[in-house]
Order: sequence, then C-alpha cells, then structure tokens
Amino acid sequence: MKAKALTSKGTRDFNSIQVFKRDYITNTIKSSFNKFGFSPIETPSFENTETLLGKYGDEGDRLIFKILKSGDFKKNITDTTLLSDDLKLISSTISDKALRYDLTIPFARYVVQNQNEINLPFKRYQIQLVWRADRPQKGRFREFLQCDADVIGSKSLLQEVDFIHLFSDVFKNLNIPNCKIRINHRKILIGLSEILNLENKLVELTVVLDKIDKIGLVKVVDQFIDLGLEESLRPFLIKYLSIDGDFDTRLNSLKTLFKSSKVGLEGVEDLSIINKLVIVDDLNTTKFVLDTSLARGLSYYTGAIFEVNASDDIDIGSIAAGGRYDDLTSVFGLNDVSGIGISFGLDRIYIVMDSMNLFPEFNTSNTKVLFTNSNSKYTKYIIEAVSCLRANNINSDFYPDISSLKKQLKYANNIQVPYVIIVEENEYESSSFCLKNMKDGTQRVVSIKEIIEILSEL
Amino acid sequence: MKAKALTSKGTRDFNSIQVFKRDYITNTIKSSFNKFGFSPIETPSFENTETLLGKYGDEGDRLIFKILKSGDFKKNITDTTLLSDDLKLISSTISDKALRYDLTIPFARYVVQNQNEINLPFKRYQIQLVWRADRPQKGRFREFLQCDADVIGSKSLLQEVDFIHLFSDVFKNLNIPNCKIRINHRKILIGLSEILNLENKLVELTVVLDKIDKIGLVKVVDQFIDLGLEESLRPFLIKYLSIDGDFDTRLNSLKTLFKSSKVGLEGVEDLSIINKLVIVDDLNTTKFVLDTSLARGLSYYTGAIFEVNASDDIDIGSIAAGGRYDDLTSVFGLNDVSGIGISFGLDRIYIVMDSMNLFPEFNTSNTKVLFTNSNSKYTKYIIEAVSCLRANNINSDFYPDISSLKKQLKYANNIQVPYVIIVEENEYESSSFCLKNMKDGTQRVVSIKEIIEILSEL
Repeated sequence: MKAKALTSKGTRDFNSIQVFKRDYITNTIKSSFNKFGFSPIETPSFENTETLLGKYGDEGDRLIFKILKSGDFKKNITDTTLLSDDLKLISSTISDKALRYDLTIPFARYVVQNQNEINLPFKRYQIQLVWRADRPQKGRFREFLQCDADVIGSKSLLQEVDFIHLFSDVFKNLNIPNCKIRINHRKILIGLSEILNLENKLVELTVVLDKIDKIGLVKVVDQFIDLGLEESLRPFLIKYLSIDGDFDTRLNSLKTLFKSSKVGLEGVEDLSIINKLVIVDDLNTTKFVLDTSLARGLSYYTGAIFEVNASDDIDIGSIAAGGRYDDLTSVFGLNDVSGIGISFGLDRIYIVMDSMNLFPEFNTSNTKVLFTNSNSKYTKYIIEAVSCLRANNINSDFYPDISSLKKQLKYANNIQVPYVIIVEENEYESSSFCLKNMKDGTQRVVSIKEIIEILSEL
Repeated sequence: MKAKALTSKGTRDFNSIQVFKRDYITNTIKSSFNKFGFSPIETPSFENTETLLGKYGDEGDRLIFKILKSGDFKKNITDTTLLSDDLKLISSTISDKALRYDLTIPFARYVVQNQNEINLPFKRYQIQLVWRADRPQKGRFREFLQCDADVIGSKSLLQEVDFIHLFSDVFKNLNIPNCKIRINHRKILIGLSEILNLENKLVELTVVLDKIDKIGLVKVVDQFIDLGLEESLRPFLIKYLSIDGDFDTRLNSLKTLFKSSKVGLEGVEDLSIINKLVIVDDLNTTKFVLDTSLARGLSYYTGAIFEVNASDDIDIGSIAAGGRYDDLTSVFGLNDVSGIGISFGLDRIYIVMDSMNLFPEFNTSNTKVLFTNSNSKYTKYIIEAVSCLRANNINSDFYPDISSLKKQLKYANNIQVPYVIIVEENEYESSSFCLKNMKDGTQRVVSIKEIIEILSEL
C-alpha cells in the first residue's frame, strides 16, 4: 500500500528559509530572556493525563490530544463501558498520556516535582511545541511553538514591571515598531463583577468583555444584560467601558468608580505602582496602556494581565500575553507560591514580521561555496580542497555526481550559493581553482589560500 | 483532585545545566552539518498513521505512539469491532495520527510532498524529538532527540566518503577521542546470505550477526545452524567471521571469499572506492574500520552501512549510525531516488561526554550580575541601573523582594551569579554601586560605567 505524502491536518513542514526565520525570532527572544535573568528548562512533550486534565476548562480538556496506551489498551476496560457513550471515561481508560497543551501547567508540575532542586524566586524560560486539537484556520495550527518566561515564588510587583520591559526589549530587537502593551488587573474585573451583581458569572463576563474590539460597546452592554445585568446598573457598566485618556487619567477614573470596592481598589493600586516604576524612556516605540476591557480567557490569572498587539495596521490579535497567577502549583500540592509569566506566540510574530518585511535576507542554504565535478580524475583534488576549507570553518560542498557544468551551475543557483569553484585540467595542473562569483558572474583563478581569504570575509 | 507531580514513564525534565549541555552538543553537530552543506528542515511531531505504519517492521508498528481522534473517536467503529481482539483494527479506527518514530520516514514523506520545491541532490538536516513506546531502561527513553543528516538524489559514493568526514568532524569538535567508525555493506550481507543458502533469512541473519560482540563467534555460528545453515557451509561462515587485519587486508579477504558472488563483489568494490577517497589524515583520532559483522537492524538499507562507537572504555553501544537506502521514497510514490543518511544519538553522546568530563563548565544561570534589594527607596535607582546594563547586553537581574542581605547573597550563590551589586545609602547618595565578586568575596564601590567595563569582559 502506498501512503499519501501529506502532513496531518493542522500541521506544517518548514523548509530551510522558514527554519532560519523561525530561529531568528526564537534566538532573539532567547537572548532577551537570558538578558533578563531567565534560565532554560525543558519538559517532556507528553504528560500523564491527570497532570493536564481539568486545568484548562472543559473546552481545554476537549482540545487536549490523548495518546493511546501502548500494548493492550483494552485491558482495563469493561465491555459495558466500551459500548457506552461516556467518551471521557473510555478515553481516560484506554489512554494515560496526553500531549502538552501549554507550557504553564507542565512548568507548575516541574516546580513541584523539582522543588528541592530549584531556588525561589525561580525564573525559567521554555521554548517548546504545544498541541491543540483545534479546527485549523488561518494562523491557527494544531502544533505550534510557545516561548514562555515565568517567575515563581515572588509577589513583588517589580516582576510585572520587568515583564513590561522584557516585552519592549524583544520587540525592539525584532524591529517590530509601535507595539502596544495593554494591561489590566483581575481584581478590577472581580470588583466590576461584584458591583454589577455578577460575581458568579466572572468567566462569562471576561468572555463578553474580550469581544469589545470586535462587536463594540453597545453590543457588549446588550450581552451583559443577557447575562443578567440589572437595568439600573447599565450606567455604571457604560461608565466603566468608556474609561479613556492616558494611563493616569484612566487610573483616576477607576479609583472613582471603584471607591466602594475593596478588591477593585487593590487592583487599581497595583497598576498605579507598576505604572510609576516602568521606565517609559526604555520602551522604545512600544506603548504601555491601561485597557479596562482586557480580560484574558485563562481562569488561573489572579493579578495583572497583559496582552501585546502589533501596530494597528495588522489585524492578527495579540502576539504576546501573560499575567500573574497565585497558587497555580497548588493543584500539584504546593501551596502559597505566586507566579507570573508571559508567552510569545511565534507564528503570529512570524506573520507580522513577514508582512512588514522585517526579516533579514536568508539563503536556502548556508553553504558559501560549491565545487563542481567534471571528471573523476579531479575528485581527490576537489575533496581535499573542500576538506581544507571546512577546516577553516568555511561552509563548503561539492556536486557529488559528474554531469554537465550547466546543470551544476543551475543547481548552485537554485540553492543560492554565492560562489562556485570550477576545476579543469589547467587548474588541476597548476594547483589552483577557478572561483566564480554567482552574483555578478565574474571568475578568476586563485589559490586555496586566496579562497580562504575571500570566503572568510563573507 | 490533586494530580501527582510526576513526569510520564520514560520521559525526563531537563534543568538549565542539562539544557546548556544538550545545546552544546546539538549546536556543535549543527555547525558541522552547516559546514558540510546541509540545510535544516522541520517536520510535524505527528503524522497521519498511514505515513508511519508498516515502515519499521511489526516491532516498530507496536512501538509507535498513536493519538486518539479528537471529538467522537467511536464514530466510525462498530460494536463488534470494538469488542473484538483486533487491537490493530480498533486502534487504526479510533486513531488517525501517530507520533514520529524516527526522522527518516517523515523526511521521505517531506521529499515527496515537496518535490517541486526542492533541488536534487537535496541535503537536509533535522534535529528533532522522536518517540517510541519502548520499555524504559538505562540510556533508553520514550522521548529522545535525534540529529539526522541525509542526502537524497545522488548515488555517488562521494556521499559515503563525506559522511565519514562528517562523523570525524563532529567528534573532533566535541573533543571525544578515539571514536571508531565501522563500515560494512548490505550487498556483502546479501552475498553472504546467498552463499550460505539463507537468502530468505536475511533479516534473521543480520540480527544474529549483530550479536557477535556480545555472544562471540562460536555462539553466532550455532545460531546460524539454528537458522538452517548446512553443516558443509560452516567453514565458509567461520572464514567470513574471522576476517581480520587492516582495511585493505580485509578487503582482499572479502574479494577472495566472494569471488563467486556478483552482489557480494559489488559491495566490496564500493567499500574499496570509499576507502581510497577517505582522507585519513583529516580523521583526527577517529579510526575508520571495515567490520564484516556490522549489520544494522533497519530493513531499508541497501548499500554502505555505518556505526560509530566511542572509545572501547565506554560500553554504551553506537553513538551515531547510518547508511545508504535506495527507493525509500517509493513507499510514497516517488521511485528511483537513492539516499544516504546518518543519525547522531544525543543521549548517548551526552553520557559519553559526561563520563569523560568533556563538557565546558556551565552555571545554573546565564546571569552575570544580581542587584540586591534592601529598601524600596532605592528601587527605581536599581531598576534603572539594571536596564542600563541590559541595554549594554549584560545579562542582569535584581532580587525582587526586600529581604535580608544574607538571604539574597545565598540566593545569588545558589544561582551561581559571578557578581552581586549592593546599594545602600552611601551608594545611592553618590550615584555609585558596591560590586561584589562572588568568587573571591572582594567588593569595591564603582560607577555604572565601570560595571559595564568589568562585566563586558566576562
């Protein structure tokens, strides 16, 4: 049976130029992570199912890829269960492992499992793949790379401040102009839910709030009414949603609005301290704004929350995000550890940079020079020269089969090699080489020493 | 429900020092791959099941991790099938994706799927994880990293020669001394099976042959008899297994032994050409030997086969391996494309380097300096200094919470930061900093400029 040569739905191959571009982004992020005091860790691609299930809500549970037990996966399941409609029970019996859904829960598991080895505050970064059984669509894949940095074991608001600096450092180094770091605070949202008598609908409230950019203020208010908002509280909600002005003005509006909400004011106070400590001069072209409609879906956030967007010209959603979470490790039995973390979305950053033409130029191949191969008589001569160039750290290669020069030059052109070396009788007899510049077509006869000099400068 | 904080069986977390060591190996390999003209590609972690099944033998099929369909995985299966013992049929109905088992089959799939985009000969490298449902044991894991380089679309024996040079380049750059590249040829093994009247038992023959290091010549001959070897052919087998001496001597013995085997002589001739072209002087301390007992398990090899072992003092099996395969892409419908490839096993190389103490020294953290934090009065002063150092590309951090100097210095020590900066009233008033060298304990008061000078040299 011949298998079809097709990648699985929602997954992608990357050719060399795509790998170079992706590495360019991750290396830039990595270098900022190192600059800001984070150290790398790596966790396995799959975890025991119980580590992941129940951490991302029902929708998350559904989107987690489960791995079939190896061997007799039916061993511990009764026929009755097998024939039942209880897909959850069946899958949790025939499967005991699942692919990583994000990097945060595995990190929490890591911290608890390795608590005797790590030093708090523990600053780690992790750049690894995650998998989600989402319906694939433009810019959304079933396998994608996340670049996360988290600090665990410190409640200091200096962490929030430092992550804001980190965001701007990354986007400065990637040359992405006019990014916008939006910040809000979960305690402000909790205060809002209390004042609106919607304490029990905090999750739904955040979902509706998040849509304001797409559906506008009026429809958001309508959906709040649908959630059960009393008519008398409509004016308050509109006031909240209409908060405007610079950071301090918005803070003052919030202070007035939330004067009766203890938790709300705690959130406002945190944002006020953070704002005072941020070094605005260092943010480059990145803007730092208070966005009271920012909500973030994930339920584990408890303090400040962030989202970063590229310039308004590009409609792609957030390219980085994060927030503070208290007690994430308590699901694994370790209490009272506060953490804060952010994540860069490689794919969206890639799309932004590609559309703004921000990548440096990459060739298909890193090879600097290709030796052509016209006669087996010269083979040893050529491979010794190749070996000599490589010993001088020059990426070098040869055409492996004897064929027409035309064909070999076409190949060199296709793989975008800047230089080709041609060896014929004259060169062979005089221990020299004909070096052809593939850009301008010029060629000259040179010694191996001269080749090393010319190519080392590339 | 509290989940246990435990990695799944056969998988591992890596802390920062382990990540640094692993990256040290992969970066060295990557740099050799680039030097030898290979370009990177990446393929998805999972493939459609039909892409992988049937490519690695029954044992391989068993060891492939299958991923449960998302949503209603029972939709297309009848109750009768579900209750049957046909695990293969059940799993292929409730699962349609599987985790990558090696990098070679996905590469063959890539070549066929992207055949209009690539240039033949196509040289690619791929450094990615693979997964096998093996029983975990010392040095064997369910998730591990492979570092592969392959050329597809060239039958030239210069490829074999170049891979031998590549092996030695990698181990020279990793400083692993006295490696041994063993070579043999599938055609010699086919010739052997013909002469021994065991043509139909080629796979079993290779399995037995591979054991000679462990069980010795006598037992190998016994097992050949068990396979059905006629008594009269025993002397030939013993002669074959007793081949000894340097490369040329062994080649001559093979020529004599296989004078009646056309296919056997083809293999001998290939090895003879390869041996003539290898630049022995460039192999450094790596030895290149013809090992007639080398067989390699994988069935897709058709030409030269390689295995590399570290020095005899370390009993860990091969640390790299490979071989030529014809027509691997034909399972995906693309015929007549010969390829050759090798793979470096990161985990075994890691064990060898660790046991021989070959890694450079790595600190837990890449941070060069940590600012202590004793009073909120100095906070802004400190974070501005940190920001200034980072702007000068110095990896810098601060202790986030105000606590005792003793505690903060202990933390600095634990994360292995070479310098600490202490700010008290004197420093704050005089716009200076107290720089403490954590190795020798000395400290002196310096300006930010001096800090940059001192730390830039680290």
